[in-house]
Amino acid sequence: MAETPESERERIEEAGPAVVSGQMVEDTAEAVRGFLEGERVGEAVRALLTLHPADQADVVLDATGEERGALLEAMDAAAVAPVLEELEPEDAAEVARLLAPEDVASALDELAPDVAADILHALPSDQAEAALAGMSEAEEVIPLLQYPDETAGGLMSRVSGARADATAEMALDLLRLMASEERGATNVVFAVDDDGRPVGYVSIRRIALARPRALVADLMRPLQASVDTGADQEECARLVERYDLSELAVTNASGALVGVIDAEDLRDVAVAEASEDMFRMAGMGKERPLSSFRRSVRSRAPWLALNLLTTFAAAGVISMFESTIARVAALAVFLPVVAGQGGIGGTQTLTLAVRGMALGEIGARRGRRLLVREAALGVFNGAFLGALVALGAALWQGSPLLGLILGLAMFGNMIVAGVVGAGVPLALRRLGQDPAVSSAVVVTTATDVMGFLLFLGLATLAIDRLA
Amino acid sequence: MAETPESERERIEEAGPAVVSGQMVEDTAEAVRGFLEGERVGEAVRALLTLHPADQADVVLDATGEERGALLEAMDAAAVAPVLEELEPEDAAEVARLLAPEDVASALDELAPDVAADILHALPSDQAEAALAGMSEAEEVIPLLQYPDETAGGLMSRVSGARADATAEMALDLLRLMASEERGATNVVFAVDDDGRPVGYVSIRRIALARPRALVADLMRPLQASVDTGADQEECARLVERYDLSELAVTNASGALVGVIDAEDLRDVAVAEASEDMFRMAGMGKERPLSSFRRSVRSRAPWLALNLLTTFAAAGVISMFESTIARVAALAVFLPVVAGQGGIGGTQTLTLAVRGMALGEIGARRGRRLLVREAALGVFNGAFLGALVALGAALWQGSPLLGLILGLAMFGNMIVAGVVGAGVPLALRRLGQDPAVSSAVVVTTATDVMGFLLFLGLATLAIDRLA
Repeated sequence: MAETPESERERIEEAGPAVVSGQMVEDTAEAVRGFLEGERVGEAVRALLTLHPADQADVVLDATGEERGALLEAMDAAAVAPVLEELEPEDAAEVARLLAPEDVASALDELAPDVAADILHALPSDQAEAALAGMSEAEEVIPLLQYPDETAGGLMSRVSGARADATAEMALDLLRLMASEERGATNVVFAVDDDGRPVGYVSIRRIALARPRALVADLMRPLQASVDTGADQEECARLVERYDLSELAVTNASGALVGVIDAEDLRDVAVAEASEDMFRMAGMGKERPLSSFRRSVRSRAPWLALNLLTTFAAAGVISMFESTIARVAALAVFLPVVAGQGGIGGTQTLTLAVRGMALGEIGARRGRRLLVREAALGVFNGAFLGALVALGAALWQGSPLLGLILGLAMFGNMIVAGVVGAGVPLALRRLGQDPAVSSAVVVTTATDVMGFLLFLGLATLAIDRLA
Repeated sequence: MAETPESERERIEEAGPAVVSGQMVEDTAEAVRGFLEGERVGEAVRALLTLHPADQADVVLDATGEERGALLEAMDAAAVAPVLEELEPEDAAEVARLLAPEDVASALDELAPDVAADILHALPSDQAEAALAGMSEAEEVIPLLQYPDETAGGLMSRVSGARADATAEMALDLLRLMASEERGATNVVFAVDDDGRPVGYVSIRRIALARPRALVADLMRPLQASVDTGADQEECARLVERYDLSELAVTNASGALVGVIDAEDLRDVAVAEASEDMFRMAGMGKERPLSSFRRSVRSRAPWLALNLLTTFAAAGVISMFESTIARVAALAVFLPVVAGQGGIGGTQTLTLAVRGMALGEIGARRGRRLLVREAALGVFNGAFLGALVALGAALWQGSPLLGLILGLAMFGNMIVAGVVGAGVPLALRRLGQDPAVSSAVVVTTATDVMGFLLFLGLATLAIDRLA
């Protein structure tokens, strides 16, 4: 690995402005690792810097602790900053801890203030203070530190609005004043009233193409939506998605414009929320594919323990019918069939409901319709699957009665699956809870328990004919 | 419901330019429904049009067939177009079928060509042809119809690039030429070489703030990535996400710039892909919360049927041990405990792997690390849960041996869960398959089968001491 062919190195040195292909990125990353293993740190850094910061961040994450230290030591603040920007704040903080406080400060100075604030939040407080003390742009970051990460305040960059009676030329000057493409470009100017409240917006495109003397009031479009600094990022993502905004205005308590959130940043939020929903449904906390062992254990252990309790509830139901099973052991054979089908049916409905709610597609009115509809689908699927399974079991075990009992239990359990799958997340939301959290555990417990009750209960009623 | 207080109606008529609040939207939608039920269609349309098109689309979707027909008849093409734009292409096509072909044509003329092409794709072919024949902008849409919906070609709008030796002023003129804000604003001009291949980009912001004589070559930044017209939308979304692009260049077979994809459109793709992953994992096709009954049945039936087969595989394993269960019926009680814990453990790992792959966080190198790590987590969690469950079962059933057997089976099954949960999606990907499809069914089948084999197998070995 320490060897890298000459041609490869030449290619890397020329690679900068070319169009990125996945293979090239892999090759370069491999070359960086080769240089690092050969302790040729200077060459490693040079190769690393030919990559896009997103790819650089991946290489840094994948490196061992020692390699990472060597890399960072050889990079200057201007080179470290874009890497920090690409990492999750927690990972960025971990990298920043390898640097001297003054280097952290210079790197943070290079970043957009909202990104710097997120990283400072993730650092231990003494290191955050040391870094902040060394920053020359501290006064832009400090106002953002008061807002939690996942609120509009934590996501926004500060902006000024243009008065509606300003001209296009003046609005362009305002943009120039705020400009510096490194800190996230705004493509919109907000128009504000006398009290600084946002009333409309003009795209920079529209300003650039307008006559210089045109009035902002004539160019602007009415504001679709705004949020206040305390609004949750999910709420922001929903508004941006729904109204197709490229930038979302943020106001303070008195309604005056204080900042703007770039829709691009919220795209990440919407995608991250989808991941979180999936994780919550599967019974996990926040976790990423190769986070630390301890974090993974912490993220999953509570749900594994909760699930253990609920499987014991299902076990309790079976235990009520132990004497029935002692007489007809074949009943035990079909336990996973009843439970498994109910579980997948409930999970299907649940997934639909949780996703629909997350995307704002299910209001209260549609919630009721969904419940009725999923119950009806349960009747339909239950009848179909019940008939199928009854036939299969009757042929296999040579007992039409056992088949009938299994079929009826499956029919009932699919209806339970539809009702519970839609009802649990709707009820959780009405109670002000997150509809995704632990709902899969509740739903599969319900289908396990009801399935076993129906199947073994019916079998107990007919035990004399079955045995 | 047919009554709407005077004050409410006044509010609705004034509502246009105000900042939208969720409650106002609900109230207005309610008012529209009231008007419709009272057959006051004119007022219904007027109230509807005070809403944002996204909210209008919701009201149209929620309306009964009859109400929908009445609403659409009273709206003109210019008013229908934004509603069509907000709907999914399939829903938009369903609405369009209620309109006369010439009205469909005028509505499609108002839309961005890529959106119009999507709706035409979703219409029955005779109606699509009739609509196309009536469109005055047909020549912009026809070239897009050759590309499937979910490819770069189907998502792009056509653009021209600026030569690198052009001036900022000329680039602005080019933008003016392409401009018409109704068809999706571009905030970037691509610079092309002599063969029309994209080599860089300049933001409109940079052009607007530059000296008019500045050269595009001096203003531009190197291109990060481009795709060809056949690239899958997932690939596009991944590039945009990874490199934080606001617009992605699309090239034809010879590498020349032919179009651009707005990152905003891909945000929806990334979120939709996350939903699709969730749906596929839960065993569903494409479906939305209140799609037609038939579509839901079709989306779920194949997976329910497949799952039925796999539960019968688990049943087959139990059936191998029927005589053991006949001697110790208490064994049946713990079947859902072994299967349930293995299932959730496997699903946790699987969710992590599928999401990580979808977000491009797991390459081949990390795939191997993930597999090792998840197996190790299985050992850890298995030891912990196994001990816990052994103790619980021993106390409950008064049999330390039964507890030990259950604990050992759980220990083994958690390791299986980790290996299979990571291994199945990695193997599916290596085989060129979608790692999400049906992987949950495979993983839970594996944990069911292995769990039952371990638990009942060990119990059979020790049956003389258990009975």
